[in-house]
Amino acid sequence: MDSKQLFENIKRKKSFLCIGLDTDITKVPRIVLEAEYPLFEFNKKIIDATADLTVAYKPNIAFYESLGAAGWINLELTANYIRENHPDIFLIADAKRGDIGNTSKMYAKAFYEKNDFHSITVSPYMGEDSVTPFLSYPDKWVILLALTSNTGASDFQMMKEEGTNKRLFEKVIENSTKWGNVNNLMYVVGATKAEMLADIRKIIPKHFLLIPGVGAQGGSLEEVVKYGMNKQCGLIVNSSRAIIYADCTDRFAFVAREQAFLIQQEMQGLLKKHKLI
Amino acid sequence: MDSKQLFENIKRKKSFLCIGLDTDITKVPRIVLEAEYPLFEFNKKIIDATADLTVAYKPNIAFYESLGAAGWINLELTANYIRENHPDIFLIADAKRGDIGNTSKMYAKAFYEKNDFHSITVSPYMGEDSVTPFLSYPDKWVILLALTSNTGASDFQMMKEEGTNKRLFEKVIENSTKWGNVNNLMYVVGATKAEMLADIRKIIPKHFLLIPGVGAQGGSLEEVVKYGMNKQCGLIVNSSRAIIYADCTDRFAFVAREQAFLIQQEMQGLLKKHKLI
Repeated sequence: MDSKQLFENIKRKKSFLCIGLDTDITKVPRIVLEAEYPLFEFNKKIIDATADLTVAYKPNIAFYESLGAAGWINLELTANYIRENHPDIFLIADAKRGDIGNTSKMYAKAFYEKNDFHSITVSPYMGEDSVTPFLSYPDKWVILLALTSNTGASDFQMMKEEGTNKRLFEKVIENSTKWGNVNNLMYVVGATKAEMLADIRKIIPKHFLLIPGVGAQGGSLEEVVKYGMNKQCGLIVNSSRAIIYADCTDRFAFVAREQAFLIQQEMQGLLKKHKLI
Repeated sequence: MDSKQLFENIKRKKSFLCIGLDTDITKVPRIVLEAEYPLFEFNKKIIDATADLTVAYKPNIAFYESLGAAGWINLELTANYIRENHPDIFLIADAKRGDIGNTSKMYAKAFYEKNDFHSITVSPYMGEDSVTPFLSYPDKWVILLALTSNTGASDFQMMKEEGTNKRLFEKVIENSTKWGNVNNLMYVVGATKAEMLADIRKIIPKHFLLIPGVGAQGGSLEEVVKYGMNKQCGLIVNSSRAIIYADCTDRFAFVAREQAFLIQQEMQGLLKKHKLI
């Protein structure tokens, strides 16, 4: 899936929503715990209820890994289910991986060969050769951490470089644009820093951005669009907890759909306002 | 295991070796492929042959993850085997994880609760709240990436801060010393940058350092000791491929032992030279 196809999907669905599958065994309704693969069971119901409202799903790998091998089976079932039943969905492994070249190659195998994710989130700390193994697959994407939504983002990402006055996250974006292109590289930019999107758009006007932090983490969708939207939308906005845990009864999938629908409606309005649909 | 116990083990074994279990299904001898859990089978034989020569084992999680859930079973069997049969071994999950607080908490569960690793390697890019969830477990360690051994290390880790003239890896070390202490925090410093160990020792004279990059990646043990050793040794030096893939026949475990023995002998000499044993 390239950036053009992604934009086509956004226009068709009138949505640039990504639903984060941060599926926590301690938070899912009791009814799914009876299933052999409870995280998958929960995800399947969420997916069936929301797939027409969202352009992407983003399983958060930590939540599966916390259950060990059993968690990985639930993850694999989820990824397969999405790829088989919803081929238009952009599938993100939120894994924050990154290591020396021969090791990143193994992580790429895990998410691009053993599973068929479209993309993986990668940490830039170890530099170019830790990122490029993920870019060597045709039609696969790296979503590189630039400016994250957590408080610790200010510890190092905002550090200014001597001489250039660039902040680390800006340097990460600038350097990495040479490693990939608008069809295989996007960036994580937290919604809690919406005004910084204007600075980022000066460096990368055309790249897609994955925006976490709307909802539970406090970011505003309108602000994100104001500073971050481009002519191809250029935004995928994630919401996890506010959708998937909106209700904890047997009706959870219906209520998740309602929440996703509210966000999709807001997105539709914003896409119209910016004349993209 | 605290730093004092770690030093006791180093003195008793006359070794500060860590053996990296970068166990690659395409590189293991044919004989282990017949086993139900081939990576575990390989590891078990390597561990049985080398456990008296090493103070730590470091499974590289990517190599297991590349096989999906099946790989995770091999990883869990390996971790359990080490903890049950060699309780004096410091067990490192080389995972390079790190995410927003609630997600790092899940990774901590994966490696400290679901499995019983002593430590995990963590990427500092997302700052304090991405690291501290791993430090909230008593007797568990974070091994924070500071200066890595790959070529990409120069992309961002060497960036100098305006005003202070500090490099990013120095700022990472300085800031993070406030998050933990010498008994739950150590740092990754690549052996390929041995002379930089002198600068690092000015900031953290007492912390343990995990040194990858000796052997296959080109670093020299003598240089590392010259610039990095302290009164409690303060070094754990990793070797992976040079030991575990020294031979690809049925005799692989014996030859791995020979290679580990050669390194242990060199380490014994260096510990004596520095009057630590």
